[in-house]
Amino acid sequence: MSKKAIILLSGGLDSATVFAIAKSQGFEVYALSFRYGQRSHIETSCALQIANKLGAKDHKIMTIDLSIFGGSALTDHDILVPKHETIAQISKDIPITYVPARNTVFLSFALAWAEVLGVYDIFIGVNALDYSGYPDCRPEFIAAFEQMANKATAFADDKNKTIKIHTPLINLSKAEIIKTGLDLGLDYSITSSCYDPLPNNKACGKCDSCLLRAKGFQENNLSDPAL
Amino acid sequence: MSKKAIILLSGGLDSATVFAIAKSQGFEVYALSFRYGQRSHIETSCALQIANKLGAKDHKIMTIDLSIFGGSALTDHDILVPKHETIAQISKDIPITYVPARNTVFLSFALAWAEVLGVYDIFIGVNALDYSGYPDCRPEFIAAFEQMANKATAFADDKNKTIKIHTPLINLSKAEIIKTGLDLGLDYSITSSCYDPLPNNKACGKCDSCLLRAKGFQENNLSDPAL
Repeated sequence: MSKKAIILLSGGLDSATVFAIAKSQGFEVYALSFRYGQRSHIETSCALQIANKLGAKDHKIMTIDLSIFGGSALTDHDILVPKHETIAQISKDIPITYVPARNTVFLSFALAWAEVLGVYDIFIGVNALDYSGYPDCRPEFIAAFEQMANKATAFADDKNKTIKIHTPLINLSKAEIIKTGLDLGLDYSITSSCYDPLPNNKACGKCDSCLLRAKGFQENNLSDPAL
Repeated sequence: MSKKAIILLSGGLDSATVFAIAKSQGFEVYALSFRYGQRSHIETSCALQIANKLGAKDHKIMTIDLSIFGGSALTDHDILVPKHETIAQISKDIPITYVPARNTVFLSFALAWAEVLGVYDIFIGVNALDYSGYPDCRPEFIAAFEQMANKATAFADDKNKTIKIHTPLINLSKAEIIKTGLDLGLDYSITSSCYDPLPNNKACGKCDSCLLRAKGFQENNLSDPAL
């Protein structure tokens, strides 16, 4: 019997790579995606394509409206997504595209599904290097969530049912993430990482996420298939 | 300037009491309720009445569909809610009305709103005595969640912005909770705790929640106004 894992699948480059890694480690994948009020509508259709192409055992899409709280350029459409010409212009502070407690909310739903399925492995594509400004991408947050998760469910305190939050990308650069995915045969043309796609659903090429991603492909001597 | 708090408000007896307690402690209340796929539809209208009557500064209702995961009699309508004639018949195991990771999910949304508002106090009406079967009502879960919350947000590691999860009911019996609310002038007729109300929205009187609640009123020499 193969091991089962839940994977948070946004439809972006990072989570697609995480899916490929989990698969290469022998996990049967239960993918979980969110419509959370984000600007990008193409993310979810990319998630569907990735789940299909990489062979998810099941794929659920949860609709939650984080925009009722606001506070982020991704969910409050009155706040503009910052655009830059070069990567050097990206702010070093927590960016306005940060969505308050988003990873906590996403991981909580993953935990709910894990408890129902009897699954103890949850994968998330957080990355502490390129997004050091996001508090919920840091190793200390993940460790604290894992500890909480092991107190939260009916498995609590059962040593044979320990929940593990896997973060295979946490210490990789964007270039290393892309290299890993390419080595696993991943087709990045079906991923979308842009915070604020153009009306024709193409990547804008100028948001932080587009610039970091393009640099990652460049460092692999490739151009980003999303551009 | 008064202190602000977020309160998870289900519309039941416990969370209404928590609201009254927080108010008596001088907090300005931001109430958060959920339509999560639960059987009871009257809960949310009770939450609206409580928020209105007790004077919430704001009240948000988040819709999330936990029924897509199933695994509980409250969200999977193919699983029957257990009914009993007496309280002695209530199972000592984790009951089938337990909703996997529900409090983790609810607290995560409270955390998201807290981060947007700049609020550091979150109240939840968990109770470890009468519901000892629910893993996410235990003090060790709350402590672990609080620790995680303090790593999760933009306030992380700022000693002046420490998030506190308040659980004023955690060590009280149902009778003590009711006594506390009555002393604060709370009108329990606008609360609903039934897991599976009758078609006319009246409490069923036979689910675990109804039986525990009725006993609490009885011990105060009162009858439950919901029955």
